[in-house]
Amino acid sequence: MNWTKKHLLGLEYLSAEEINAILDTASSFKEVSTRSIKKTPALRGKVVVLLFMEPSTRTATSFNLAAKRLSADVVQISASSSSTIKGETLKDTARNIEAMGIDIVVVRHRVPGAPQHLARALSSCVINAGDGCHEHPTQGLLDIFTIKEHFGRVEGLTVGIVGDILHSRVARSDIWGLTKLGARVFVIGPATLIPPDITQLGVEISYDLDSVLEELDIINILRIQFERQERTPFPSIREYAQLFGINSERIQRAKEGICIMHPGPINRGVEITPEVADGLHSVILKQVTNGLAVRMAVLYLVSGAQEGPA
Amino acid sequence: MNWTKKHLLGLEYLSAEEINAILDTASSFKEVSTRSIKKTPALRGKVVVLLFMEPSTRTATSFNLAAKRLSADVVQISASSSSTIKGETLKDTARNIEAMGIDIVVVRHRVPGAPQHLARALSSCVINAGDGCHEHPTQGLLDIFTIKEHFGRVEGLTVGIVGDILHSRVARSDIWGLTKLGARVFVIGPATLIPPDITQLGVEISYDLDSVLEELDIINILRIQFERQERTPFPSIREYAQLFGINSERIQRAKEGICIMHPGPINRGVEITPEVADGLHSVILKQVTNGLAVRMAVLYLVSGAQEGPA
Amino acid sequence: MNWTKKHLLGLEYLSAEEINAILDTASSFKEVSTRSIKKTPALRGKVVVLLFMEPSTRTATSFNLAAKRLSADVVQISASSSSTIKGETLKDTARNIEAMGIDIVVVRHRVPGAPQHLARALSSCVINAGDGCHEHPTQGLLDIFTIKEHFGRVEGLTVGIVGDILHSRVARSDIWGLTKLGARVFVIGPATLIPPDITQLGVEISYDLDSVLEELDIINILRIQFERQERTPFPSIREYAQLFGINSERIQRAKEGICIMHPGPINRGVEITPEVADGLHSVILKQVTNGLAVRMAVLYLVSGAQEGPA
Repeated sequence: MNWTKKHLLGLEYLSAEEINAILDTASSFKEVSTRSIKKTPALRGKVVVLLFMEPSTRTATSFNLAAKRLSADVVQISASSSSTIKGETLKDTARNIEAMGIDIVVVRHRVPGAPQHLARALSSCVINAGDGCHEHPTQGLLDIFTIKEHFGRVEGLTVGIVGDILHSRVARSDIWGLTKLGARVFVIGPATLIPPDITQLGVEISYDLDSVLEELDIINILRIQFERQERTPFPSIREYAQLFGINSERIQRAKEGICIMHPGPINRGVEITPEVADGLHSVILKQVTNGLAVRMAVLYLVSGAQEGPA
Repeated sequence: MNWTKKHLLGLEYLSAEEINAILDTASSFKEVSTRSIKKTPALRGKVVVLLFMEPSTRTATSFNLAAKRLSADVVQISASSSSTIKGETLKDTARNIEAMGIDIVVVRHRVPGAPQHLARALSSCVINAGDGCHEHPTQGLLDIFTIKEHFGRVEGLTVGIVGDILHSRVARSDIWGLTKLGARVFVIGPATLIPPDITQLGVEISYDLDSVLEELDIINILRIQFERQERTPFPSIREYAQLFGINSERIQRAKEGICIMHPGPINRGVEITPEVADGLHSVILKQVTNGLAVRMAVLYLVSGAQEGPA
Repeated sequence: MNWTKKHLLGLEYLSAEEINAILDTASSFKEVSTRSIKKTPALRGKVVVLLFMEPSTRTATSFNLAAKRLSADVVQISASSSSTIKGETLKDTARNIEAMGIDIVVVRHRVPGAPQHLARALSSCVINAGDGCHEHPTQGLLDIFTIKEHFGRVEGLTVGIVGDILHSRVARSDIWGLTKLGARVFVIGPATLIPPDITQLGVEISYDLDSVLEELDIINILRIQFERQERTPFPSIREYAQLFGINSERIQRAKEGICIMHPGPINRGVEITPEVADGLHSVILKQVTNGLAVRMAVLYLVSGAQEGPA
């Protein structure tokens, strides 16, 4: 297919065909990262701005490396470094940066919809790197890429997303992408952390992990984001770990080929035990590796470059 | 002309001929930024250090992109990241960085004269990116570049600089540059924010914007720097906006071709209304675009590279 | 010799032959930094991550420039920027970064042994950029490089390391390297700052600088790290300067060709007077210059690249 979208705002806005086009492009870029010289000149002379208004290490680093591997120039602007931005609207900040002749803005912002807002205001390409509780589309894409790589397909698989569904932009992007590609999706967690109307997105709800455990091909474990919650939404960490933590005992009861995913960073001993995180069923580090390939693909496609990986 | 200066410390120290040489070089570099591959190898293998001892987003980003567009390597050192610098003099810091084989130091510092001090201590080129209330020469140059681009000339035009003249390094650089190129300059603002002896720089003072409004070809609106002022130097924001804010009503009374400039970031609704900032007369985003070209020209000229843009 | 080590964890773990191999490689890289285009393609397409969990300006900048001069891509991750790293172990952080396809991790960490820990967990190369009070091997190497450059040899020279030996990773790396290459080493300072069992590393202790001053060919002055000490380990700065500060009067009594070193940043007037720091005997800025060459050599050797400097 011919790629036509200038922005990547969320998996909600992509067709199954478009998602597959990104995954296919990512496959060819994944090969670049195995070379001795891990560079392709696809985006040489283009400028990618990483506008991270929320702290991030791994997503920012992944985009940074992806852009450099495509030979783009990268400028990183973070909320903390941009004290002069105070009092300036996000739109003014972005329009000013755009006026410097940049090509792609990768934006993380605590406000849901901020990337859409920018996409309307700018003529540059805009990539959403996480907007509040809304979407984190490249995380969704790398999750799906990893599933497809592992099982050879997405359709017909059953995926359980476990944890704080309410506040998770990762969950939302996973749900949009996985259901579009024909997976069955359970969202699993305490009732306080699952919005009831999420079934409208085509998922099933379970408040009892153990009752659906044996149906799952993949468990995608969300991170408990202690740093975001003023009040813990569940009685105790220990109770949470007992009810929803993924440990060896649950792995034994799960399907033989169960695939364990986590967007990281891991709280070892809370939502996942160390032996599972480092065990045979875990593809957690593969997700990180695939994240780079997926982000290269997205940067490449939105930039509208015509040349393939060289 | 042959460029001979190793440093750019302020427009006070440049001749009209030298200012024009920078503007001409900037014109040819502006073309580079319109190419698909926005790169020229002019400074390949050179190292530019951005030594920002005061926070900055837009100036630092502009210099960063300008240096990369010239294919230089860029190292950014900010006050916050350099905790080990504590107790070390600026001169020692700079001499240490220079000993690593760098070519150009771009310095921002709250102390007026700090760049001069460095220029005496170092054999590298030094570019002033703002020193206290003294000068911000590349901002002055991009303002003048934008005026010349808009009107085809600078000589004979009347420029009103409106706002906090007392604390503004932008005003000072603009005044030096504009008067050298033959413009007539008014500084306009409340009496508390205009040093009476500024007339020695060849400008006229007005405490009443409306009385001179119709004479102006250009209004350069300074930012109210709330973050720098412990006490507001005027009774109220509302009164300031009434007396000196640029709004549609004032634009209507101004010359037909009035050109509205602002160094950014904008306080919308304070010194400028949104409809003026985004309106037909505004060249605010063009200033940002031209800033990149001007900084490429300055980096290129001081580095003494002999080759033109490739 | 053929270089075989994948990591640089400390000079304790290197043979004299290996240390000399690094110094020889650094000599050839030092020449690169004198060229107009200060670049060699040796590490093109390789990714170097600077994982600095303690603040650093000069070491991080030196590694950054060294990697760029070798044409590597550099990603800098600092403790302050990595708020999402909170709660994640260093090992998990590093394994995640490694999964992005990086080649070399340069790590600074307040915990002694952290780089060893990483070297066991990762398949990437690991370079120790300072681990607590343990080692700072590239500082040790640049000190030795500077001595060898100055005197043409290391063997048979007498080096006095003056200051806080107890907390100094620089002292420890210097001691390992210098004694392996046949230098005689004195550690000199107040009794509270010298661990008595340091003689096991093959050095002699002196609590009285003046009694050994005339024997020394080199004085390596350690920085008083005010920022690390809750309580000053000596009665007063003034008394410390009197007993152990290097001033003109002591230089006069020292050997004619005395060579003055300091790892920086300098506390002028405390451990060294300005006239000595800037005087004829000082090689302090040469150390900084040599640091770049040594770090280029280390990055090049551990990466296992087969090609020499182009």
